[in-house]
Amino acid sequence: MNLIQTRGPAGRAGSAPVAARYAAVRGRTEALAAPLSAEDQCIQSMPDASPAKWHRAHTTWFFETFLLVPHLAGYRRFDDRFGFLFNSYYEAAGPRHARPRRGMLTRPSAAEVTDYRAHVDEGMAALLRDPLPEAAVLVELGLQHEEQHQELLLTDILHALSQNPLLPPYDPDWREPPAATGEAGWLTLPEGLAEIGHAGPGFAFDNEAPRHRTWVAGCRVADRLVSNGAWLAFMAEGGYRTPTLWMSEGWAACAAEGWEAPLHWHRRGEGWMQYTPNGLRPLDPAAPVRHISWYEAEAFARWAGKRLPTEQEWEVASALPGFRDATGIGWQWTNSAYLPYPGFRPWEGAVGEYNGKFMINQMVLRGGSLATPPGHARPSYRNFFPPGARWQFSAVRLAEDAP
Amino acid sequence: MNLIQTRGPAGRAGSAPVAARYAAVRGRTEALAAPLSAEDQCIQSMPDASPAKWHRAHTTWFFETFLLVPHLAGYRRFDDRFGFLFNSYYEAAGPRHARPRRGMLTRPSAAEVTDYRAHVDEGMAALLRDPLPEAAVLVELGLQHEEQHQELLLTDILHALSQNPLLPPYDPDWREPPAATGEAGWLTLPEGLAEIGHAGPGFAFDNEAPRHRTWVAGCRVADRLVSNGAWLAFMAEGGYRTPTLWMSEGWAACAAEGWEAPLHWHRRGEGWMQYTPNGLRPLDPAAPVRHISWYEAEAFARWAGKRLPTEQEWEVASALPGFRDATGIGWQWTNSAYLPYPGFRPWEGAVGEYNGKFMINQMVLRGGSLATPPGHARPSYRNFFPPGARWQFSAVRLAEDAP
Amino acid sequence: MNLIQTRGPAGRAGSAPVAARYAAVRGRTEALAAPLSAEDQCIQSMPDASPAKWHRAHTTWFFETFLLVPHLAGYRRFDDRFGFLFNSYYEAAGPRHARPRRGMLTRPSAAEVTDYRAHVDEGMAALLRDPLPEAAVLVELGLQHEEQHQELLLTDILHALSQNPLLPPYDPDWREPPAATGEAGWLTLPEGLAEIGHAGPGFAFDNEAPRHRTWVAGCRVADRLVSNGAWLAFMAEGGYRTPTLWMSEGWAACAAEGWEAPLHWHRRGEGWMQYTPNGLRPLDPAAPVRHISWYEAEAFARWAGKRLPTEQEWEVASALPGFRDATGIGWQWTNSAYLPYPGFRPWEGAVGEYNGKFMINQMVLRGGSLATPPGHARPSYRNFFPPGARWQFSAVRLAEDAP
Amino acid sequence: MNLIQTRGPAGRAGSAPVAARYAAVRGRTEALAAPLSAEDQCIQSMPDASPAKWHRAHTTWFFETFLLVPHLAGYRRFDDRFGFLFNSYYEAAGPRHARPRRGMLTRPSAAEVTDYRAHVDEGMAALLRDPLPEAAVLVELGLQHEEQHQELLLTDILHALSQNPLLPPYDPDWREPPAATGEAGWLTLPEGLAEIGHAGPGFAFDNEAPRHRTWVAGCRVADRLVSNGAWLAFMAEGGYRTPTLWMSEGWAACAAEGWEAPLHWHRRGEGWMQYTPNGLRPLDPAAPVRHISWYEAEAFARWAGKRLPTEQEWEVASALPGFRDATGIGWQWTNSAYLPYPGFRPWEGAVGEYNGKFMINQMVLRGGSLATPPGHARPSYRNFFPPGARWQFSAVRLAEDAP
Ligand SMILES: [Fe+3]
Ligand SMILES: [Fe+3]
Ligand SMILES: [Fe+3]
Ligand SMILES: [Fe+3]
Repeated sequence: MNLIQTRGPAGRAGSAPVAARYAAVRGRTEALAAPLSAEDQCIQSMPDASPAKWHRAHTTWFFETFLLVPHLAGYRRFDDRFGFLFNSYYEAAGPRHARPRRGMLTRPSAAEVTDYRAHVDEGMAALLRDPLPEAAVLVELGLQHEEQHQELLLTDILHALSQNPLLPPYDPDWREPPAATGEAGWLTLPEGLAEIGHAGPGFAFDNEAPRHRTWVAGCRVADRLVSNGAWLAFMAEGGYRTPTLWMSEGWAACAAEGWEAPLHWHRRGEGWMQYTPNGLRPLDPAAPVRHISWYEAEAFARWAGKRLPTEQEWEVASALPGFRDATGIGWQWTNSAYLPYPGFRPWEGAVGEYNGKFMINQMVLRGGSLATPPGHARPSYRNFFPPGARWQFSAVRLAEDAP
Repeated sequence: MNLIQTRGPAGRAGSAPVAARYAAVRGRTEALAAPLSAEDQCIQSMPDASPAKWHRAHTTWFFETFLLVPHLAGYRRFDDRFGFLFNSYYEAAGPRHARPRRGMLTRPSAAEVTDYRAHVDEGMAALLRDPLPEAAVLVELGLQHEEQHQELLLTDILHALSQNPLLPPYDPDWREPPAATGEAGWLTLPEGLAEIGHAGPGFAFDNEAPRHRTWVAGCRVADRLVSNGAWLAFMAEGGYRTPTLWMSEGWAACAAEGWEAPLHWHRRGEGWMQYTPNGLRPLDPAAPVRHISWYEAEAFARWAGKRLPTEQEWEVASALPGFRDATGIGWQWTNSAYLPYPGFRPWEGAVGEYNGKFMINQMVLRGGSLATPPGHARPSYRNFFPPGARWQFSAVRLAEDAP
Repeated sequence: MNLIQTRGPAGRAGSAPVAARYAAVRGRTEALAAPLSAEDQCIQSMPDASPAKWHRAHTTWFFETFLLVPHLAGYRRFDDRFGFLFNSYYEAAGPRHARPRRGMLTRPSAAEVTDYRAHVDEGMAALLRDPLPEAAVLVELGLQHEEQHQELLLTDILHALSQNPLLPPYDPDWREPPAATGEAGWLTLPEGLAEIGHAGPGFAFDNEAPRHRTWVAGCRVADRLVSNGAWLAFMAEGGYRTPTLWMSEGWAACAAEGWEAPLHWHRRGEGWMQYTPNGLRPLDPAAPVRHISWYEAEAFARWAGKRLPTEQEWEVASALPGFRDATGIGWQWTNSAYLPYPGFRPWEGAVGEYNGKFMINQMVLRGGSLATPPGHARPSYRNFFPPGARWQFSAVRLAEDAP
Repeated sequence: MNLIQTRGPAGRAGSAPVAARYAAVRGRTEALAAPLSAEDQCIQSMPDASPAKWHRAHTTWFFETFLLVPHLAGYRRFDDRFGFLFNSYYEAAGPRHARPRRGMLTRPSAAEVTDYRAHVDEGMAALLRDPLPEAAVLVELGLQHEEQHQELLLTDILHALSQNPLLPPYDPDWREPPAATGEAGWLTLPEGLAEIGHAGPGFAFDNEAPRHRTWVAGCRVADRLVSNGAWLAFMAEGGYRTPTLWMSEGWAACAAEGWEAPLHWHRRGEGWMQYTPNGLRPLDPAAPVRHISWYEAEAFARWAGKRLPTEQEWEVASALPGFRDATGIGWQWTNSAYLPYPGFRPWEGAVGEYNGKFMINQMVLRGGSLATPPGHARPSYRNFFPPGARWQFSAVRLAEDAP
């Protein structure tokens, strides 16, 4: 099967035997949900976020809809009504429950969703017993999709629990990941023609292709992320009160939403605490800042006399020696709008809606975060959110023009 | 202790021994919550409604705050943070969680709320062991308060579950209450001076007092409630499409919210089903209509060539022989605004906020509904909701001027 | 012709010859508009207010639609499209321009509206040449209607001009009306059966009828209005920062809209100025307060240990010797909701929409204001606005229960 | 003075003597406003649009603030309060009137704005009498700025007048501009390194610089604009009812705003009319479509099996022989987000806010429209609007990947 020709998601070369990988990914989702009560899993704290239970069911629906129904002879849907409840945004897959009302779904219960997952896992086990010439790539897509929802499950539940005045921890065993600290070094990118985008082998999303040439102006990119301490300096110098530092729209958002610090920061006495997956913790000035919008990142960069890198610069720089914390800490806002690469063609069929229809009014983030499943991200990976989004583990890496 | 002098809630004369009554009322709340999962109990479907778990905790907070803390020596609060979470609107009792965000409280869990109830019940048992010269009336107020929340628990959960496309039943054993059917008879009220309002004995809310004289113009009041069948006729004659039948503001609400039938009606094929506590059921044309706003009730009355009774007319008529279904089916919208009676004085202390501060932009409903706890309502009882509210078990009893 | 029987607006007995009165009222409207430029006349500062030009055209449309078209043989409409533009809310008179978009009507120009007025005045002159057995009462209604719009023209333009940072005066020759100042005296109302409502002779609106008996509890009513000085004391004692003084809904409005003083008050240095029809002027502590919502009036009354009178109390008290400033200064908020009197029947025909369809979520104001045309108001007159409205010349007269 | 070094706006080489050019540009603004009454000039139909009078005053304020006050000795401001009223968005120039309330400014009148313009023109005449080593470039910027507002004056007034049910013409003498009609030809762009951006000579905005290299993938660009006839075919095939053709956000906008045709189209009987500067006119199927959002343009391109060009492709293609209607008809949406060019540096001083702070959530349009002043645009010109904007003269030019 020639994946390029059929324009489905590109396969994952050299992966673990697929059944084992399937079990691992699916199990990881359940492990992430394990610290949560049924109540925790049910609520939705804002239209952009989804309940943990919904993530668990929606990822299951994906396998049922795109793999089991078309490809497993004799498969019976777990519940015919779940298509309506757990379709996210696939117009081609039929009507669906309104996104901002996902938190109203007390039924099916978390336990029933567990049964749903088991039912589909059983079907997938049957399907994976034999070679899958046609659908192999969709299995991998389903797993990549589930990994993406694993990250969202964590950012969404953090937001949901943060709405509770008790500020309960998601997981009392959770620990901050180690990151590069101290003064940033600067990596130099020479001017010239570069290639970016995914060229295989291995899986990539359609939005990472095709690999293509791009002209990169010379510049310098920081070798590490901006720290909480630097952010405190920005705040101390009136960063949140100085409109000339901000995009016009960013300043409006700042004023309308009353921003005066990153999301999940809480003033306590003279200092700041940070709400983390392990509850409210003292803010570590050396650690990278996170939970900031593009608007804030961009204003900070202006205040610092720098700028954000483009996604092309980021991708090229990430291959340089000394580039720290590409992933594992926080997604890094770029100054690139999320747009199709030259020659972009969405996948065929319903999964063609996966990425393409969001290519407007969003900014690209590169790298990966502490919530990104191990092995999920790669240098060509394009994450994207609207410039006002703050509930992701979003961070800042600075750049500057060549002198 | 002279309750009238101190202007606290008037005591309930001749009630069952208070400890037994306390146990019965508290137990009834738990019985109402029994069919609900922890998830069901957690969600909030609109700002005006509250989660079932919140009702269970808030009624408990009421006893803790107004009885145990001031009156039980050595009492220790279950959790110091619950005051913030479960205060509803008592400014005098301190700051509180934002009402529209009550559905975010996955913690404390439903099970912890059960523990909270047990803790407070234990304290109350201790408190009730001895005579309560000062606080007796507050105990009764706490129980009346809890009964009010029992009704809300049911209307709120019905609304919450109705948001689920699966339309799950609240209780598969629930049955429709029997009601007077068939053509209405008309009870005649002569013109003259009447007395309305509560004069004891027994408990009443401050808004039912003082009993006072009022001049009632002669009129006729229907002896039963308007039926679903009559409502279908209103609909068939374009009731929801004829602006001249409506108050100006009512027509705006009808258009803005797309009303074309009472709340909880679902078109199925040619006919209508009704979402009930027992799930979706065929609509019974003989049964009284319910889940209608004041706007709809008033438009219906105009279409029928009648009007709504005033609350004074309702109260006087309710004493006439032949007056059916005063309570047990649906609260009956009146054409009276919810305003203080002449000489009204709110209770003293924090409970003075109980009723008085809502006396604007609300209409009075009289009677009682299928969700009203047995024995809770009385002829002088004043229920009130904004004219656009539809999620209560609200019904229509017509009136007309004397010929 | 028996107007009572036909239930049209009751005629004005003993009025000046109708043609002369028509000319006087119509001319007064033009005199009110005279200080305004075409631009001033065009804008609409909020959905509840209308442009001055629109008032001028709409009152003209009223005569054209309800008098000339049905009653003047051979009358030709000035412009067939004006019915759509200048119908306010008469469903029976056809579709109409959206109320919040009245400020978009730069055409017809102010000059064309002058022509429109002249055209209709000419038609009316022809109509009034002969006796009008059928339509006489509609002529009077048209004039009363125009007088009502004269008051609105002034309150609306004051609001519109107040949006301009330059705070331009409406009329540099305008002077404050004299009012009773100093300590209030208290007029005593004995308990008993009273009659209120209009019984003729002379014109009255349908909502003032029928005259009917009502039981009035004994009380005392202030003989004058609350002063700016008293309001300053309320403010100084934290009136706008004390939620327990307010209705729940009123406090929400106060917080949402950031009220900290009456409308049209401007802090200048240590003190306050008031925006008046003559521009920004020093606030006179002795003068009656105005431009307050019902919410504020009611909170003030609670702070003062008093209450607002009911409309029944107001009407009875207004006949007592010593009752000052019933009209001429500010409309006085009552604690009565705007509801139909017992036996109320709206006028027949399209003018039946005049009053009845607004009888929900509004509070009654009694008396009259500095903007009320001389001779327009009477003791039975019922003005009404939603409890949050502040842009009228609304004032406070206190009452209290009999000791 | 080396403009590049000081990073102010680049000068216009070889222009007409500046005083003559000043007079011509300023006179053109007045000519555009000439068909409008004072009322027409006063209103604001939506927050994104401004009143014609405001455009006239704001462009004048620009000269007063950035030229006369700093550079003309002895200049006296016309009115000290105008800075507050007519500053648009320059934070560095002080506080300003809220943008959505510009339609409330009935004072100063249109006539006073004429006086203001004369006063500033007089000052400018004095200033321009002598050589302007430092400020020359700011004069040109002021003129370019005024030309931009000339276009907005026309699109804004068209929107404002379109709110009037009478659909009055802006100018009965206005005629549609001629455009290339018939089947599109396709111009081929070879793959390779290209240069785009302004390099002089002549004026350009800061956002057009620096000129820089960019890698362009091979593609084909249409030689003319999409026609109304093609748009009718899109509509006939359900373009406005097919979500899979749309960006997710675009479909939401389409549904929320009820789009079913371009802005300013009016269904009349079986066909369509178009509201134009000359009022309502029959829609010409051969003429280019206009008044479409980026969302619609992008959906149309997908329906047509094509795509929108990037701004780089557009700029390179515009130099090819056969490229028709680059300007004069409608601005052409590109698939490029409005972002800084590599090495972009905003101008220094207050005018640095001119362009840079809007570089988020906007898409680039290229070319020029029938409302663009002659000589104003150039191939490197970057216009920008949010993807939902429809009130500009916005059009579509298609592109496709190389086969
Ligand atoms: Fe998904
Ligand atoms: Fe309560
Ligand atoms: Fe009117
Ligand atoms: Fe400007």
